[in-house]
Amino acid sequence: MVSPTITYQFSTASVNYFLPEQLENLTALAAGKRLVLLTDENLFAAHAARLSAFDCIVVPAGEPYKNEQTVAQIIQQLIVREADRQTVLVGLGGGVITDMAGYVAGVYMRGIGCGLVPSSILAMVDAAIGGKNGVDVGLYKNMVGLIRQPLFLCYDLSLLSTLPQSEWVNGFAEIIKHACIKDAAMFAELQQRDLAFYQQNPAALQSLIERNMRLKNEVVVADEFEQGDRKLLNFGHTLGHAIENEYQLPHGHAISIGMVAAAKISENLLGFAATKAVEQVLAQYGLPTHFNYDKTKMMQLLKMDKKRSGNTIHYVLLNQIGQASYQSIHIDQLEKLL
Amino acid sequence: MVSPTITYQFSTASVNYFLPEQLENLTALAAGKRLVLLTDENLFAAHAARLSAFDCIVVPAGEPYKNEQTVAQIIQQLIVREADRQTVLVGLGGGVITDMAGYVAGVYMRGIGCGLVPSSILAMVDAAIGGKNGVDVGLYKNMVGLIRQPLFLCYDLSLLSTLPQSEWVNGFAEIIKHACIKDAAMFAELQQRDLAFYQQNPAALQSLIERNMRLKNEVVVADEFEQGDRKLLNFGHTLGHAIENEYQLPHGHAISIGMVAAAKISENLLGFAATKAVEQVLAQYGLPTHFNYDKTKMMQLLKMDKKRSGNTIHYVLLNQIGQASYQSIHIDQLEKLL
Repeated sequence: MVSPTITYQFSTASVNYFLPEQLENLTALAAGKRLVLLTDENLFAAHAARLSAFDCIVVPAGEPYKNEQTVAQIIQQLIVREADRQTVLVGLGGGVITDMAGYVAGVYMRGIGCGLVPSSILAMVDAAIGGKNGVDVGLYKNMVGLIRQPLFLCYDLSLLSTLPQSEWVNGFAEIIKHACIKDAAMFAELQQRDLAFYQQNPAALQSLIERNMRLKNEVVVADEFEQGDRKLLNFGHTLGHAIENEYQLPHGHAISIGMVAAAKISENLLGFAATKAVEQVLAQYGLPTHFNYDKTKMMQLLKMDKKRSGNTIHYVLLNQIGQASYQSIHIDQLEKLL
Repeated sequence: MVSPTITYQFSTASVNYFLPEQLENLTALAAGKRLVLLTDENLFAAHAARLSAFDCIVVPAGEPYKNEQTVAQIIQQLIVREADRQTVLVGLGGGVITDMAGYVAGVYMRGIGCGLVPSSILAMVDAAIGGKNGVDVGLYKNMVGLIRQPLFLCYDLSLLSTLPQSEWVNGFAEIIKHACIKDAAMFAELQQRDLAFYQQNPAALQSLIERNMRLKNEVVVADEFEQGDRKLLNFGHTLGHAIENEYQLPHGHAISIGMVAAAKISENLLGFAATKAVEQVLAQYGLPTHFNYDKTKMMQLLKMDKKRSGNTIHYVLLNQIGQASYQSIHIDQLEKLL
């Protein structure tokens, strides 16, 4: 029996967080149940020896494979293995894998247990937390999915040793997002440091990851089904998702551009006064702050955003660093502001 | 504002039942929200004039189309219509349609509202009730799905005017199932009457449908996630599903055969003494009671049943008419009993 670092209680489930932990202990974390691991080709190759003890379903790596076809293949693989309702599906990977693992576990046999081993900064501080899962449909991100909590998350920080530099940058976009909307003190810490510092100081990195894990969980636990505060986590994501899909930008780059755009709209509508500081801290962590996108195409995509309601789009804006709010903006007004 | 006949309260949702009602009132039942209807080609043709007022997604009819490909097509149709989270997807049809409508509404944009208009006896008394939905994967029935409650069900009994005789027979298999496991008085009523009687007496039919709707809801409300009593509703379904898929039998025929098999196992293991009465009432409503199936193939399929747990299968048996119980039977023993 392994004790979790912290347990979060949701409406119909509780989620155990193990941080720090080693993936070798997964069976113990799943209370001895039968495990099937889901991972991608890159991670399977990079950690072949450590994964050899597990029954692994391996899918191609990358967002283009986060779709209904891959989900159908994973389900076929579970059927071939005669996986039943006592089986736990464990997703080991970045957000693409943790999203698909959560979704498949949610629908296979109307729901089996799910565990997650986030392997990227982005998945550790954001994507794997909160039970939102799903796959893309064409250009539309997460158009199909569920809000369903996993049984546990296992944080094995040694997996970060093979994370490409570009993925470190991506992950810090979400960390900066958290700082912008909820944690002015963390924003100040990030201003004083840089990526190299965290990469060379495992203790500082672990502490930063845990701080972000707790911050996101506190928001999510208080608002599991996104009726209120959880919506603030979409800061930078409305325009960000549209740009990401249309131009195949990395997620962190896209939401960095989205955060700068939202900061400027905040300046316009709410008198937000720290756009420069937001731009500077993003640039300090290797993130782009500007991008020449096709405005007409973007507006078309925004109209299909899940946060649209009739002719208005719900947009997250900043009042000040560490304090965000949620505003309805008419599509025509948004077009002008962009 | 239309008042529901009865409202059932689930853990995270309440479900309104309107019985009797007319499909023309659907928009009012959905509190004025935007509706998209899902139906099949047969029903769309049979009720073209009545459906012309609605925005309909029409899919091919029949169980062979209850799969992930049809789900993907429905999702594409919702995207084309720019359906958002304020849209309600209403499934009008038999169990195939109500299952797919419930599933698509559960995953599209991580969940939109769902309404159901069951158009067959089977859907009215069973399939559309209780929130279980899903699609088949190859030979495996409902291998992918959710337990999620719809917002409302609308019972328009005039839809039964175009129901083929074979589908009446199918539906009565579930009614007899309900009587066997929970309602000895209804079993006695069914013994005294026949299909022609109910087809010629709308009031008796409506009363029978409502009785079954209430019976199933009472079981389901008490055990939403199938931890206990709800499992009894699987009486006849374990073997039934396997036969249905392998031999393409109608659902009612397959579970009729499954109920007779379960009654005989009950005789063997629990001293159940009314197998003959069960066979007689099934035959009285046009249902088959015997079928020469391939035992080896059946056992292979039973091993993939969702109710399997390791080497045992959970089987619903009868103690007496109106009283069922749930037993674990080892796969080897089951093979001998069949």
